[in-house]
Amino acid sequence: MTERSALTYKDAGVDIDAKMQAIERIKGRAGATFGGHAGPIGHFGGTWRLPAGPDRIMVASADGVGTKLRLAFVLGGDAHARVGADIVNHCVNDILALGASPLFFLDYFAAGALDPDVLALVVGGIADACQDAGMALLGGETAEMPDMYRPGEYDLAGFIVGEVAPDRTVDGSSVRPGDVVIGLPSDGLHTNGYSLARRIAGLTGDPGHDRAILAQPLPGGDESIGVALMRGHRSYLRDVQPLLAKGIVRGMAHITGGGLRDNLPRCLPETCIAKIVQGSWSIPPVFEWLVTEGDVPVEEQYRVFNMGIGFTLIVRPIDAESVTTALPEARVIGAITPRVTSDEAAVQGLSC
Amino acid sequence: MTERSALTYKDAGVDIDAKMQAIERIKGRAGATFGGHAGPIGHFGGTWRLPAGPDRIMVASADGVGTKLRLAFVLGGDAHARVGADIVNHCVNDILALGASPLFFLDYFAAGALDPDVLALVVGGIADACQDAGMALLGGETAEMPDMYRPGEYDLAGFIVGEVAPDRTVDGSSVRPGDVVIGLPSDGLHTNGYSLARRIAGLTGDPGHDRAILAQPLPGGDESIGVALMRGHRSYLRDVQPLLAKGIVRGMAHITGGGLRDNLPRCLPETCIAKIVQGSWSIPPVFEWLVTEGDVPVEEQYRVFNMGIGFTLIVRPIDAESVTTALPEARVIGAITPRVTSDEAAVQGLSC
Repeated sequence: MTERSALTYKDAGVDIDAKMQAIERIKGRAGATFGGHAGPIGHFGGTWRLPAGPDRIMVASADGVGTKLRLAFVLGGDAHARVGADIVNHCVNDILALGASPLFFLDYFAAGALDPDVLALVVGGIADACQDAGMALLGGETAEMPDMYRPGEYDLAGFIVGEVAPDRTVDGSSVRPGDVVIGLPSDGLHTNGYSLARRIAGLTGDPGHDRAILAQPLPGGDESIGVALMRGHRSYLRDVQPLLAKGIVRGMAHITGGGLRDNLPRCLPETCIAKIVQGSWSIPPVFEWLVTEGDVPVEEQYRVFNMGIGFTLIVRPIDAESVTTALPEARVIGAITPRVTSDEAAVQGLSC
Repeated sequence: MTERSALTYKDAGVDIDAKMQAIERIKGRAGATFGGHAGPIGHFGGTWRLPAGPDRIMVASADGVGTKLRLAFVLGGDAHARVGADIVNHCVNDILALGASPLFFLDYFAAGALDPDVLALVVGGIADACQDAGMALLGGETAEMPDMYRPGEYDLAGFIVGEVAPDRTVDGSSVRPGDVVIGLPSDGLHTNGYSLARRIAGLTGDPGHDRAILAQPLPGGDESIGVALMRGHRSYLRDVQPLLAKGIVRGMAHITGGGLRDNLPRCLPETCIAKIVQGSWSIPPVFEWLVTEGDVPVEEQYRVFNMGIGFTLIVRPIDAESVTTALPEARVIGAITPRVTSDEAAVQGLSC
């Protein structure tokens, strides 16, 4: 506590004026996502008018992008918009797995010092994905936190709220032995497994070094490692909503952190297990490369990566064909069988 | 991409099992906050049953704790629970400023490597504060992000959803010249201004060095600098709800980042300005010390720090006494006057 000259917030690394200007820029993007339900921007909370109606189930979820962000730091440009859209789609799929339609979204963006251009790219990606999902970007927090993040780095989280009618909630409780598991393809790693993928690829965080690696062709693929790793988190909203309207879906899982092994059980009753048939879908080159290059044990593969399946549906056998007809990319990847002993693994067929 | 032995997620710094165990520990704390509205824990989203009813306004907000976290890193123990409660109370006050009652909360906790004990302390603080506010801790995201955060450090954000009847929304549109501004005392810095406060106090992030500074007595106060800086973010829910029930509140502001200068205008119509009377409340010693020690310009003081006022209410003059009677700590701190020119500052009286 030595003598010093007058100190302002800006001296301490927080530039409120720059933040206000950056927020003015993103307000327009957020505003474009508003339907008739949302109130004005700029108050202490975002408001959403919910019309009178019967009992409804609100479904909420929070999630982050994880260390896919570190690729965006190195690649810059569109990669910032990409992770913005990723966090939205991740959240959309999470509540979709319960049968819910998205209503509104809020983001949390934190950096050591705000770069208005990066913020605009990220929020642009968020706003576009919100619009695609038909939901409002209702607000968010833009935090400038000196000494917390390195220059050029940031963290990004998303919060979503949706709704579903009580008799339309899908929680897996109606899943029965004999039902089939249908897998919908992922577009890549989505937002999971990046700490292992970065390690396997030999990424260090040094921009020059990492860009050189990311520019290399993906073995077995027809694109670069960077393009393959930056592919977006696919939203399953448009594919799945028509099936929900038909009432034929008994259980759904969003295949994120934990992979098929940990996520599929979340929509299974205690009395059931899922038997997955390896080879019933084609594993994209990026996963083949990662697990070979990293010599990743098989059990680990299906827990860290989605391995080409981003979302699963459980339906009666009689309904399977209507799903695979409506969604030509969908594959029957397994079946539900009765659980015989209580210590039996809930997902089987994924280890050698 | 040199040869190496088999790689697992754990090798890459992500321990899914440890995370699952930590989450099992915090599930109980979250469960304790559930009323009859919330569904089971562990699915892809938290569910909340909203009973049938007329039009309602959902109010949502996202926020972070900011670099008050850096004090918690150094102090440890209860300070982790403290910042957990802080983010909840911050969010509660944000939606309260629109007249909304809290329904549910989700958190985002991100660290380089998960420390289950620290996570349990933070989530414990969150759960206790949620329970105090009568809302459910419906879910959250616990992110393990190697290479993003330094050992022992984490970021923390919160997301709240509440509701208010359309005819009970308070947005400041009924504020009129002649109304009075009432200030409710803060308990300290709450969660704003810490980057400047840390700079003024000479904190570096080195635990030994910082703990020695934080243990020093606060000049003009009867506690240590550390105790003063770690005081919690006060929730104004219980104080303000009875006034909302009476329908006497015309405008409210939660005094957070931006201080009285930037937050008070958020509940003022374009036609009004607020004239604040400096000296109408006593400024706590921690602020006197910070602005003196840092030689912080007066205008900056009221934009970075709350300076002892954590929440403001605008009421008709006839209702002021009932507020100050119900809340003995409340002070009339200013009045609303007509805006004469369009370039006039919305808040006056805070600069010399």
